[in-house]
Amino acid sequence: MVMSPRILSRRPAAAAGICVRAIQKVAEEPCDRILKSPSLVSLDILDDWKTDRGSYDPPSVPDICQASWRIAEIIDGKMIAERIRSRIAEEVARMKQSVNGVPGLGVIKIGQRRDSETYVRNKIKACEEVGIRSLLVELPDDCREDEVLKALSRYNEDPSIHGILVQLPLPDHLKEERILNAVSLQKDVDGFNPLHIGNLAMRGREPLFIPCTPKGCIELLIRYGIGIAGSKAAVIGRSNIVGLPMFLLLQRHHATVSVVHAFTKNPEEITRDADIVVSAAGVPNLVRGSWLKPGAVVIDVGTHPIEDASQEHGYRLLGDVCYEEAVKVAGAITPVPGGVGPMTIAMLLSNALEAAKRTYGFSGPNLSGTYK
Amino acid sequence: MVMSPRILSRRPAAAAGICVRAIQKVAEEPCDRILKSPSLVSLDILDDWKTDRGSYDPPSVPDICQASWRIAEIIDGKMIAERIRSRIAEEVARMKQSVNGVPGLGVIKIGQRRDSETYVRNKIKACEEVGIRSLLVELPDDCREDEVLKALSRYNEDPSIHGILVQLPLPDHLKEERILNAVSLQKDVDGFNPLHIGNLAMRGREPLFIPCTPKGCIELLIRYGIGIAGSKAAVIGRSNIVGLPMFLLLQRHHATVSVVHAFTKNPEEITRDADIVVSAAGVPNLVRGSWLKPGAVVIDVGTHPIEDASQEHGYRLLGDVCYEEAVKVAGAITPVPGGVGPMTIAMLLSNALEAAKRTYGFSGPNLSGTYK
Repeated sequence: MVMSPRILSRRPAAAAGICVRAIQKVAEEPCDRILKSPSLVSLDILDDWKTDRGSYDPPSVPDICQASWRIAEIIDGKMIAERIRSRIAEEVARMKQSVNGVPGLGVIKIGQRRDSETYVRNKIKACEEVGIRSLLVELPDDCREDEVLKALSRYNEDPSIHGILVQLPLPDHLKEERILNAVSLQKDVDGFNPLHIGNLAMRGREPLFIPCTPKGCIELLIRYGIGIAGSKAAVIGRSNIVGLPMFLLLQRHHATVSVVHAFTKNPEEITRDADIVVSAAGVPNLVRGSWLKPGAVVIDVGTHPIEDASQEHGYRLLGDVCYEEAVKVAGAITPVPGGVGPMTIAMLLSNALEAAKRTYGFSGPNLSGTYK
Repeated sequence: MVMSPRILSRRPAAAAGICVRAIQKVAEEPCDRILKSPSLVSLDILDDWKTDRGSYDPPSVPDICQASWRIAEIIDGKMIAERIRSRIAEEVARMKQSVNGVPGLGVIKIGQRRDSETYVRNKIKACEEVGIRSLLVELPDDCREDEVLKALSRYNEDPSIHGILVQLPLPDHLKEERILNAVSLQKDVDGFNPLHIGNLAMRGREPLFIPCTPKGCIELLIRYGIGIAGSKAAVIGRSNIVGLPMFLLLQRHHATVSVVHAFTKNPEEITRDADIVVSAAGVPNLVRGSWLKPGAVVIDVGTHPIEDASQEHGYRLLGDVCYEEAVKVAGAITPVPGGVGPMTIAMLLSNALEAAKRTYGFSGPNLSGTYK
């Protein structure tokens, strides 16, 4: 019960310079695109430092990048993800009718880690539900690198496969870099190739794919009308697959971002100064209530199964954030489960649809677009 | 006089947790490699978050990444760059003797911007001094894209050219991305290709080249014994060529980094909290004394020519940092000129040498290596 989403009484949101509005209103907004997030290049604005007689006065953020601060208290990733998936399903149906093809996702799973089994099962199920065709290659824990590369090569050459997913983490004996780099750039729906990461980082560039978890977090912030541009953000963790691209994406959206990692002294001082805190440290309950500024927006990427005999499956999920404490301080927070997790899967489907659209030259309504 | 390097009285360095030692001592240290900066992969350490009963206690930074805090007050980039260039000259001579070849740098200059003319002249002169062969293609301000691409293609195919440099900024009608992306990855000594930036960003990866200015800043910090790992750093500016790669590089060295840009509210609050401030905003005198923590290390990337009839050339150079104010607060600071500028050129030579070594399969002493 403690971990499930619930509507809370109003928090002192004013402290973070934000105002609150009910989630239902946000959720019912008309949606003319599948995703609300704009292309990154459309966000590029000149860093016009304004100095007047030696004092510094920051320019105001152009409207193009600035949503108003209006947030709900529980950020319902499950509901938003369902909405996105339903739009993707419509698009896939339209694609099938129009070009007689559907997106195809090729998955490679190596070994039998319990968490990987669950993730892969959920992804394949989500594909089915929206009409995306999925293939699964399962390799044993002790498979050789050339076996993985051969399976990848088959997916790379298969014109009916538009996106390829290698479930991480890999067994220790396999070199992640060599394997991920073998995924065709055009099919790298996880966005992990360094070329995509470089294009995500650089002003004026647009990556073919943005990694799914950070993309899902941004989509949540935008859908909830949380102004990213001009805000102070803290990203906890700097992994290649979440923390790093999360920093890059928040910066492209004109947040002022600090990245906290395990060697940061007094991390709570940095997070306590942030309007938006994204935690992807991989440590259950790391972020306490005292780490947060009253009214801050908290995005919890952590998913840690903790044994609990009282639960149906024998475990419950904890996030990186100590939810019970954080809900008393934050202005808005993603629950675990039901926050970031479903969004990651929705973004994977969205990336796979995008890849297929490029291949088929099919131009449905924009997946994402610029603010009008 | 005001802008020239000078030895200052001791500053209250203790406030930044640092201790001071004389520059001469640092400068005379034995140097077994041309560069002191280690390979990035050698710095990769596990982010081992330590939580004990709910409170967070950061692990101490491993010795491998942690120099002790010992800094001088004026960071003499000119002297360090001369030292590096002299080592590069030795290596080039050894290369010539050993494989009968020298590094070759192909430069493309478009238009007649006065600053670009100066930069290109200085780079070519620096090449000559260390025995690197340089070629220069000068194109008119109104040249077409295909003319630039043709010149690039000639350099790409020329086996005697190991590094290619397109002087920026380009005239407005040319698209920077298309032109820079046409530089062969193996010859992109500026390190601006998104693949190099992605590899610079990602843990476990090593880019073929690191952009020269950030690389020069790190080399200065390391040479002066300034501990990067575990420190708080603020980077002012987020350009593709300095601010962004500077952030990425500081983070690979385990600093906790915040990136300040033009839309940051109260930037001085963030910089005042930093042990290391790198300013690459491109705004003269932006960073005032009040923006700095007493004892902080200040790296000033700005170079702004300001008309001044009293000077020999009719102008003097200003940095991003208000030097007169900053020297009264900082524990160490790079002067302008004579700080970062000469290091940028030295790193270009170093990258060109590295590129030639790869081509010739020539293994002299390491350009850079791991800490012992």
